[in-house]
Amino acid sequence: MTKSSVLIVGSLAFDDLEMPSGTFENVVGGAATYASIAASLLCPVRLVGVIGDDFPSAVISDLGKRGVDTSGVEKASGKTFRWRGRYAKDLSSRETLDTQLNVFADFRPKIPATFKTTPYVLLGNIHPALQLEVLAQIERPKLVVADTMNFWITGEPKLLGEVMKKVDLLVINDEEARELTGIHNLVKAAADIRKRGPKHLIVKRGEHGALYFDEAGAFFAPAYPLEDVLDPTGAGDSFAGGLLGYLTCVGTLEHPVMRRAIYFGSALGSFCVEGIGPRRLLDVTKADLQKRMGEFMSLVETGGPVVLPV
Amino acid sequence: MTKSSVLIVGSLAFDDLEMPSGTFENVVGGAATYASIAASLLCPVRLVGVIGDDFPSAVISDLGKRGVDTSGVEKASGKTFRWRGRYAKDLSSRETLDTQLNVFADFRPKIPATFKTTPYVLLGNIHPALQLEVLAQIERPKLVVADTMNFWITGEPKLLGEVMKKVDLLVINDEEARELTGIHNLVKAAADIRKRGPKHLIVKRGEHGALYFDEAGAFFAPAYPLEDVLDPTGAGDSFAGGLLGYLTCVGTLEHPVMRRAIYFGSALGSFCVEGIGPRRLLDVTKADLQKRMGEFMSLVETGGPVVLPV
Repeated sequence: MTKSSVLIVGSLAFDDLEMPSGTFENVVGGAATYASIAASLLCPVRLVGVIGDDFPSAVISDLGKRGVDTSGVEKASGKTFRWRGRYAKDLSSRETLDTQLNVFADFRPKIPATFKTTPYVLLGNIHPALQLEVLAQIERPKLVVADTMNFWITGEPKLLGEVMKKVDLLVINDEEARELTGIHNLVKAAADIRKRGPKHLIVKRGEHGALYFDEAGAFFAPAYPLEDVLDPTGAGDSFAGGLLGYLTCVGTLEHPVMRRAIYFGSALGSFCVEGIGPRRLLDVTKADLQKRMGEFMSLVETGGPVVLPV
Repeated sequence: MTKSSVLIVGSLAFDDLEMPSGTFENVVGGAATYASIAASLLCPVRLVGVIGDDFPSAVISDLGKRGVDTSGVEKASGKTFRWRGRYAKDLSSRETLDTQLNVFADFRPKIPATFKTTPYVLLGNIHPALQLEVLAQIERPKLVVADTMNFWITGEPKLLGEVMKKVDLLVINDEEARELTGIHNLVKAAADIRKRGPKHLIVKRGEHGALYFDEAGAFFAPAYPLEDVLDPTGAGDSFAGGLLGYLTCVGTLEHPVMRRAIYFGSALGSFCVEGIGPRRLLDVTKADLQKRMGEFMSLVETGGPVVLPV
């Protein structure tokens, strides 16, 4: 039996990062890049996106060596998508200084024929119209996961509503969940979102962990507490990639597999923030991941049931 | 064998609460009140504090009915300590509008002879000099837990340093941990605090749960996610009371008992915030607590070890 793959559609980019530790320019980034690097530690990846003439071919061939099928990465004439951001001193917030869509402006995802039956699909944070175009091109997968952002929540609510009807798992952050629903309380907001389509919902809370909601109830996993955080860029994408990588590798969605997948996503996210750009993430081995998972589990371990003494 | 007890020293008060849901005046409060109500669900409590002529005797006799020995509650001539605060619309922050120390201004805790050998001790958030006076009056307990606040961290750093050398478990919130150490990263701040005395440290993060540090490493427990939060007043004190109530009831500090105690503390804190003042907390039964603990555990349940598939 061939190993299952995950299809990842989204941005490949250059990031210019103004960090408290220095300014780093031309850092290879993009949601699909981070998600692919994370997922490829756990399963084969099929990547769909667009790059310009200026994107280093070495990065594409390195992805290939990691088991990422890059035949869906289109090379367009022009410059690669570029984002410039400045982070707060404590890294808890960031400000977008500049966004240059470049070749991403005219991007229309084309799913290669060999990718159309991929069982696990991650729709990165792109225009909801493009997310719908991807869904129209593929055969019904086992699981469709979508990310989105405030920009689409306010700018394209109708199209986003269509996307939500067609995805199994929506991954957003707490502020996005509040903006999407107009409800401050996350438990109530989650119930509201799940009524709009996605049976599964993850609400990311950065360093405060992630909440997950499905028909079995609510689940909470903390973020792995780190002593040294260098760069949060791509952490959410690494989370999604790691989560899907684990699900694809396990090959079942039976309860409580999604809960375990969230821990794997968080572990990959924790590696991501330890380096500028994807530098640290690229170096992570399966052994590193296993070690961190052990430490992660010891962080929440209660040594058995926690009940009232009789 | 007689059941072990916990000694709780701290404030009994009236609170005037300006909440988004309305203004509530003359609400019975105080850290020691909340902690005693929470702890008394799990073990006998010995309470030491001071009230004025205006404090309702019915409250004291109701505490007695819950198994709280109130013989250490001194009745002084004058008015009871009073705090007035206004909460933000989303309850995430509050502002102190007025503090009237009243009889609390001259309070010098006197530990009754029968209380001096209590094995578990909670030093509420009072002047560090008073915390030291309590410690000077008691025989070496099994566990001394102390709370403190920014006011003492900046105002009485030397005395607080003395207290820290003598306590086993310090319970503070994240901002206090940062202020105490000047270190933003909580993992690093925790290591710094533990070097100053307390072998055990809990860093409370409100709705984001609690981090715990000891020689076995770090532990994280989330807050119980609620749909309806009415009043956060006393949640931290209920947490401390519930934690100590569980430890006293179990009677051992063997690893991982403290981790389980944190869940019990969090569960009691979650009840506290469901009502204005201690109203909801007072109604909680052991059966309610058991039910919530079951729901709480299902929130973090991963159904076995979370490891990489081979």
